[in-house]
Amino acid sequence: MNDTRNRLVNVTAVLFQRQGLAATGIKQILSDSNAQFSSLYHHFPGGKEQLAAEVIRASGIRYQELVEAVWDSAPDVLTGITQVFEGAAETLEATDFAVACPIATVALEVATTNEELRVVTAEVFSSWISSGTDRLVAAGIDLTRARSLTLILVALLEGAFILCQAAKSTESMIAAGSAAVAIVSDALESSVADP
Amino acid sequence: MNDTRNRLVNVTAVLFQRQGLAATGIKQILSDSNAQFSSLYHHFPGGKEQLAAEVIRASGIRYQELVEAVWDSAPDVLTGITQVFEGAAETLEATDFAVACPIATVALEVATTNEELRVVTAEVFSSWISSGTDRLVAAGIDLTRARSLTLILVALLEGAFILCQAAKSTESMIAAGSAAVAIVSDALESSVADP
Repeated sequence: MNDTRNRLVNVTAVLFQRQGLAATGIKQILSDSNAQFSSLYHHFPGGKEQLAAEVIRASGIRYQELVEAVWDSAPDVLTGITQVFEGAAETLEATDFAVACPIATVALEVATTNEELRVVTAEVFSSWISSGTDRLVAAGIDLTRARSLTLILVALLEGAFILCQAAKSTESMIAAGSAAVAIVSDALESSVADP
Repeated sequence: MNDTRNRLVNVTAVLFQRQGLAATGIKQILSDSNAQFSSLYHHFPGGKEQLAAEVIRASGIRYQELVEAVWDSAPDVLTGITQVFEGAAETLEATDFAVACPIATVALEVATTNEELRVVTAEVFSSWISSGTDRLVAAGIDLTRARSLTLILVALLEGAFILCQAAKSTESMIAAGSAAVAIVSDALESSVADP
């Protein structure tokens, strides 16, 4: 990827995570990326909207890869899930609660105001949900239940991010992680009992 | 409450829920409320920031009262929780996924950008958490566990709102509701077993 293009995407990803889409103006993007207006429109002829779509996709892939790396390096599925939530709590604390979900703010902002970008956020969440579902199926849980469990895990993570950022406390992420483990543990036990 | 003041708060609450804080300019607030600039500053000498704080508080109280009314009119705690999640799913569908959490978008926007408003969002969530905790304690669950369970319930609700709005589907809210009921049901059973 071209250096300037890359820098535009990375800088905008940080701004979106911190302040959202509407608060992030072209001027700040150019200034923080040390890029010219002409470069932005060279790489993104569709302007801020096209850049935003690419940032949402890139942030979604990056976060998915991070979570998959944590999950897949754990000795078992319950340890993997524990470590995903613990990792989220550690990152929140290490960044003074600045680094949470990379796309949640934008997803809520665009949900009813920008149909094209809403679809991009939906595709990111859909990819995360497929990734989690695949891993739970591999652990022996049937597909329908694995999907439903993954929706619950992602909801717990996303909801806990909001509560933790608002309260500047990891208490909700710790509670969410314990709930995630309990729910998947129950599903694993009943899958063994009724394969 | 003065009519114009009331209208400013209600109109801004709708705009915040739909598009967030940064996208909501003074011009749109005045136009949608049919109010003058001078009225806004008469009722809110601190301008948009003071209005935003009042809107977050008012929206938080209104949503809490709504959830409490649903929960308290149910014959038992599990039915109450079921109906809160079902109600959220019904409202999402009835409004084409426009009406979800009234303060989540703003909470994420201000978390690291506006300390005064972050504290206001934290107070709203804190009040919701106290309300849920009180109800679970009344149902026989010990205080520490009741608080932890309430954090999980609110996280499930908030996270499911994000996923449902992005996907324009209530699937995540239905999954979150079933998880909420399962988790509280387990806690009630073990409270009976070990009072």
